[in-house]
Amino acid sequence: MTSFADITPTLERLAIEVPSWAYGNSGTRFKVFGTPGTPRSVEEKIADAATVNRFTGLAPAVALHIPWDLVDDWAALRRYAEDQGIALGTINSNTFQDDDYKLGALTHTDPKIRQKAIDHHFECIDVMDATGSRDLKIWLAEGSNYPGQADMRGRQDRLSESLAAIYERLGETQRLVLEYKFFEPAFYHTDVPDWGTSYVQVSALGDRAKVCLDTGHHAPGTNIEFIVAQLLRLGKLGSFDFNSRFYADDDLIVGAADPFQLFRIMVEVIRGGGLDEDSEVALMLDQCHNIEKKIPGQIRSVLNVQEMTARALLLDREALTGAQEAGEVLDAHEIFMDAFSTDVRADLAAWRESRGLPAHPAKAYAASGHQEGLEAARVGGTQVGWS
Amino acid sequence: MTSFADITPTLERLAIEVPSWAYGNSGTRFKVFGTPGTPRSVEEKIADAATVNRFTGLAPAVALHIPWDLVDDWAALRRYAEDQGIALGTINSNTFQDDDYKLGALTHTDPKIRQKAIDHHFECIDVMDATGSRDLKIWLAEGSNYPGQADMRGRQDRLSESLAAIYERLGETQRLVLEYKFFEPAFYHTDVPDWGTSYVQVSALGDRAKVCLDTGHHAPGTNIEFIVAQLLRLGKLGSFDFNSRFYADDDLIVGAADPFQLFRIMVEVIRGGGLDEDSEVALMLDQCHNIEKKIPGQIRSVLNVQEMTARALLLDREALTGAQEAGEVLDAHEIFMDAFSTDVRADLAAWRESRGLPAHPAKAYAASGHQEGLEAARVGGTQVGWS
Amino acid sequence: MTSFADITPTLERLAIEVPSWAYGNSGTRFKVFGTPGTPRSVEEKIADAATVNRFTGLAPAVALHIPWDLVDDWAALRRYAEDQGIALGTINSNTFQDDDYKLGALTHTDPKIRQKAIDHHFECIDVMDATGSRDLKIWLAEGSNYPGQADMRGRQDRLSESLAAIYERLGETQRLVLEYKFFEPAFYHTDVPDWGTSYVQVSALGDRAKVCLDTGHHAPGTNIEFIVAQLLRLGKLGSFDFNSRFYADDDLIVGAADPFQLFRIMVEVIRGGGLDEDSEVALMLDQCHNIEKKIPGQIRSVLNVQEMTARALLLDREALTGAQEAGEVLDAHEIFMDAFSTDVRADLAAWRESRGLPAHPAKAYAASGHQEGLEAARVGGTQVGWS
Amino acid sequence: MTSFADITPTLERLAIEVPSWAYGNSGTRFKVFGTPGTPRSVEEKIADAATVNRFTGLAPAVALHIPWDLVDDWAALRRYAEDQGIALGTINSNTFQDDDYKLGALTHTDPKIRQKAIDHHFECIDVMDATGSRDLKIWLAEGSNYPGQADMRGRQDRLSESLAAIYERLGETQRLVLEYKFFEPAFYHTDVPDWGTSYVQVSALGDRAKVCLDTGHHAPGTNIEFIVAQLLRLGKLGSFDFNSRFYADDDLIVGAADPFQLFRIMVEVIRGGGLDEDSEVALMLDQCHNIEKKIPGQIRSVLNVQEMTARALLLDREALTGAQEAGEVLDAHEIFMDAFSTDVRADLAAWRESRGLPAHPAKAYAASGHQEGLEAARVGGTQVGWS
Repeated sequence: MTSFADITPTLERLAIEVPSWAYGNSGTRFKVFGTPGTPRSVEEKIADAATVNRFTGLAPAVALHIPWDLVDDWAALRRYAEDQGIALGTINSNTFQDDDYKLGALTHTDPKIRQKAIDHHFECIDVMDATGSRDLKIWLAEGSNYPGQADMRGRQDRLSESLAAIYERLGETQRLVLEYKFFEPAFYHTDVPDWGTSYVQVSALGDRAKVCLDTGHHAPGTNIEFIVAQLLRLGKLGSFDFNSRFYADDDLIVGAADPFQLFRIMVEVIRGGGLDEDSEVALMLDQCHNIEKKIPGQIRSVLNVQEMTARALLLDREALTGAQEAGEVLDAHEIFMDAFSTDVRADLAAWRESRGLPAHPAKAYAASGHQEGLEAARVGGTQVGWS
Repeated sequence: MTSFADITPTLERLAIEVPSWAYGNSGTRFKVFGTPGTPRSVEEKIADAATVNRFTGLAPAVALHIPWDLVDDWAALRRYAEDQGIALGTINSNTFQDDDYKLGALTHTDPKIRQKAIDHHFECIDVMDATGSRDLKIWLAEGSNYPGQADMRGRQDRLSESLAAIYERLGETQRLVLEYKFFEPAFYHTDVPDWGTSYVQVSALGDRAKVCLDTGHHAPGTNIEFIVAQLLRLGKLGSFDFNSRFYADDDLIVGAADPFQLFRIMVEVIRGGGLDEDSEVALMLDQCHNIEKKIPGQIRSVLNVQEMTARALLLDREALTGAQEAGEVLDAHEIFMDAFSTDVRADLAAWRESRGLPAHPAKAYAASGHQEGLEAARVGGTQVGWS
Repeated sequence: MTSFADITPTLERLAIEVPSWAYGNSGTRFKVFGTPGTPRSVEEKIADAATVNRFTGLAPAVALHIPWDLVDDWAALRRYAEDQGIALGTINSNTFQDDDYKLGALTHTDPKIRQKAIDHHFECIDVMDATGSRDLKIWLAEGSNYPGQADMRGRQDRLSESLAAIYERLGETQRLVLEYKFFEPAFYHTDVPDWGTSYVQVSALGDRAKVCLDTGHHAPGTNIEFIVAQLLRLGKLGSFDFNSRFYADDDLIVGAADPFQLFRIMVEVIRGGGLDEDSEVALMLDQCHNIEKKIPGQIRSVLNVQEMTARALLLDREALTGAQEAGEVLDAHEIFMDAFSTDVRADLAAWRESRGLPAHPAKAYAASGHQEGLEAARVGGTQVGWS
Repeated sequence: MTSFADITPTLERLAIEVPSWAYGNSGTRFKVFGTPGTPRSVEEKIADAATVNRFTGLAPAVALHIPWDLVDDWAALRRYAEDQGIALGTINSNTFQDDDYKLGALTHTDPKIRQKAIDHHFECIDVMDATGSRDLKIWLAEGSNYPGQADMRGRQDRLSESLAAIYERLGETQRLVLEYKFFEPAFYHTDVPDWGTSYVQVSALGDRAKVCLDTGHHAPGTNIEFIVAQLLRLGKLGSFDFNSRFYADDDLIVGAADPFQLFRIMVEVIRGGGLDEDSEVALMLDQCHNIEKKIPGQIRSVLNVQEMTARALLLDREALTGAQEAGEVLDAHEIFMDAFSTDVRADLAAWRESRGLPAHPAKAYAASGHQEGLEAARVGGTQVGWS
């Protein structure tokens, strides 16, 4: 049996990158509701990310989105972040909000528009050079809405060429991470709809091109932990975008919709070495706090990952393997469920305190008056929005 | 065998209400792309709806959305529409864009917010009195995103009370039509998620309360034509919101994603008397033309409904019933598919010409120069958007 | 805060009916695997059900399936069961295995076949009279595989007539419970595909006709606990068929695929009075142990229900209501999750021991030698199969 | 514009392999209904396949399933088939009906069971040598039902080794085709659940290992034609298993559930060279005629493929490319739909007659008395069943 003390060294390594856009307002196509205290600048977003890290010890880096987070002086921004104890992390490109990209970007039939999109990624790489970021994450909103609208095959070929041009530009310690998504904003076909397509495309590029797995980007019923296991086996799992969903890409707080699924995913991450010291798997959040407060929402999110990681680490693998090899279906399942059923909240709270962190970060944040301070201070100016 | 001539009397009755908001810009949460020539006022939206009717003879009414389409002088707007050969149709309420409704409207725990939402519907009924509209259509965006966030059961009771207050206010020839939706914008629970809930709620109100079936608002795999048949059997099918989808509520052009499904739906509409002279079933579009031109998109939509209605009317019901009663599975299926396989385009074109309409409305519209005229004229001002 | 001691009176009332067919072999259309020790008679199935009850104290009744469990002497069978401490429970009819029912039973176009199916239900009611069973549960495998094959509307009408004839025959303390199912074995349309249809049909019959909710019989993504809340609100939730699934009607052990969903369902059951002393909601299992041992599979199943019921009873409803009414989304969600995160295994074990039951029923069963005894004794004869 | 005459050379090449098991009885886990005239031997199954070919000219080969179709004298069986104008085609292995395979075959933890499964495939290759078959098709029923039951990652590694052993044994002109399936009979994880996994596994083997795409083996909403395009692009589409579905793996007649989807698939097959003279893509049926007559069911199936292939060949690709490159969304969609809307039944009938085939194969078969002859002749003996 594994004890809580056995797992704290690994838990200590757990680091979850938070996205700058999670602190701005977000919503659905119907309405974006505003909330008091929402940031009005990149700096305020970074400050909020640093606050999450201060209360949880779990979020040492913040991912940026270009052009939303563009600044003139990257060195200054980097210092600003580091002063608050947080690093600038993954750089996310954006090829879905320029009018030119209505019918495609890296896959567009018009070579000028493709080049514009490639150039945007070059700009992102320049930013990475300035911020010291390792990863360029590419999510493509490309696809088509109507059968016949586009030549899916030709787009796949053009995508391959465009990605090669971008990959070529990367520095030697930089990586390209390609996200896939089942649907939305395109409603008939998506150019990178599944892990297979992302895998095929990044495999053609080289070793530093990897797949990004967003937990909300699959067809109903998809066994996500199987994909995690497969990509780790293939050495191609670059990063996670964590969130949860009941229906489509709902972008809810990770672990909120199906905590057992998050547990199963973390079991496979651990099984495949994703939490090892030399692991190259980046854990990120990518969520929208449409109706809840943002900083508390992010706090709950990283704690959910921590909690399910702890339960997954407690899994008695030796006993499990024994039951699996003996073909004892119910015994193996029970060993698995015993880890999931373990309430780690008290152990985690004590361990947090031993590290100088609040036992209960959400309650500590609520009691700190920080939120009220933000709401009072951040008046006037334009709140940043997710899009 | 039924000939095309046999079905034209019914085809002649086919009327599809178009939504004013289809002519404005729409999009996804990621981006709303603008298009040249987009209306800047209610009048321009109505003019566009009238254009669709002029080219197709299929769209004699336009549905309005309150408050998007609010005007001071309803009598003037009604004359404006009638002068262009189109009637003002269904009034759609909106309880999803006011900040007060972030956590609910007709179901909110706070009675003041519930009353505000009820009052909004009273205002809509006032508009109906002025426009002569028969139907008040209620789509509720209400629900919750996180388990525990809301008391689903209590909300159902409050919904019942709120609807009763609204129904009470209706005039004797007016109807309340309650739409259901599987999910979005709420991502854990929706207060009216399925036809059963809508049926239960409207049945408690009275005879003039009906269900609205939006073809995009179902779980994956749902047999929609079964629901059509069931609601017609129960006398509770008030109206359709036509559109099509591959995934979620994609709001694509009706018939674009699965023309055979549209055919099957129209077969059940006809089977259940929905195209009879005294039918109370209203056929409406509710779509978003995110990337395609709006007027041509609406033209294609009403033509798709017409085409599938024609195929459905050609179904040899006598032979079908014979095969069904004989238990001849493949024969029955073949008779059914024969109607669907019939190419009615040439017959419809000839029939259109015989009625003074263009044989091919989409080509006629493209050749008319109307679109270019709009794009030249509608410069400056603010384009209307879907939200 | 609710303590474990507070909830034991309700836990004590928890009773889960087990199905006789769960002890026989089952499988998929590809293969039914046999297992040693499988019953060869109704009596052996009842003995196995009694064993589950003996080790768990949770399964005081066994549901029978007609004609699979037909015997000549019902009084003897009843005594046999009672001697082992178990009652004969719900009677399940079967209209899916007779060649006459290939294209329908209660909905068939041929009145002779309809009458045959009605007569079968009369026979079931006779059995109920003999066994003292309260509930006649009807699951209809009826539907069609190909569009056009059947007249869905006409079948709905015939179903209504057939059910009326059956309901009419029920005794005054007997109930009719109508199950719905999304699909399978019919693959185009199912005659009772959703709760709405079951509700409409049973409402037309009378007060003693109720809906049966099988947790595996919904479209992907369906919010099942909403339906639970709605049916309880309407006074029409007759019974549950518990099981779990990842994809379709997988019939896995209840709580195995998504324990959080089972928790949410139990929260709504409690919220709606389904565990009150006068509750008329029957909790049943309906599962297939295709690859695992049957008795241990049933033991795990009833324990899963007990465990999630305990967690649901621990929910701090006062605090939850406060947070809900204050619109504190994250607080409400956290209160909800706190109950779910509570590890009740140790408390349940101690409580079991205090009642003379084994602390860990699965381990106790494994250690008892009972399984080995069955495997040695039940050699020869024909194992009973699920179908 | 393409005329019907332009497309007949390609149509002439269209050949669809039919499965021997389609002529036997099949069903669901609930019931296998028998039908008069069902074959009682391999020879009778082949005779039925030959009948389908005689009436349609579309089915020149029959796929066999080992061990269901095992015979002592393969040379004799081959002559028997050839005498009836039909070739023996793909050999399908079976690792899902032996008790040893309850928890896995090629992936089993026990090396003896893995070797047994590998040996079975060696036996299949021996059969291929005797029949002259090119393709060994492997569908694996392997997976697990409960989280924790199996080590998914280890199974993937073992699968890789087992497949390598089988591939090694193939002759130089033989191929291995690996099917994937979303779920069933395993209900938690499947070892080859998606095209990505099949692609990864066959890519590791070599050029003569390909992917088999069964149109019913995907998650809800999956864009199948995208996968077709991708696999053709990668040179890895080995074969199709055609069928259709509304829900899960319903195995209905191809084209029955969504003819437009079949059309879109055939468009991509043609676009990717899948109907070119040197194409290595094999088109097969894999269906279950649970309630309909088998030979007429197969006739309808091959005709559906022919009809949608004809429509797809009529697509005006030059105009389509023009509209796509101009970004004219609606024009491109309309060109696409115009091909789909074309009624090719009369042209196909005339063309069939010109080749000495019946204009309407289904009606010709019904009028031929062949079915009645089979029903009278095939009395006694044991009907073959699908499993």
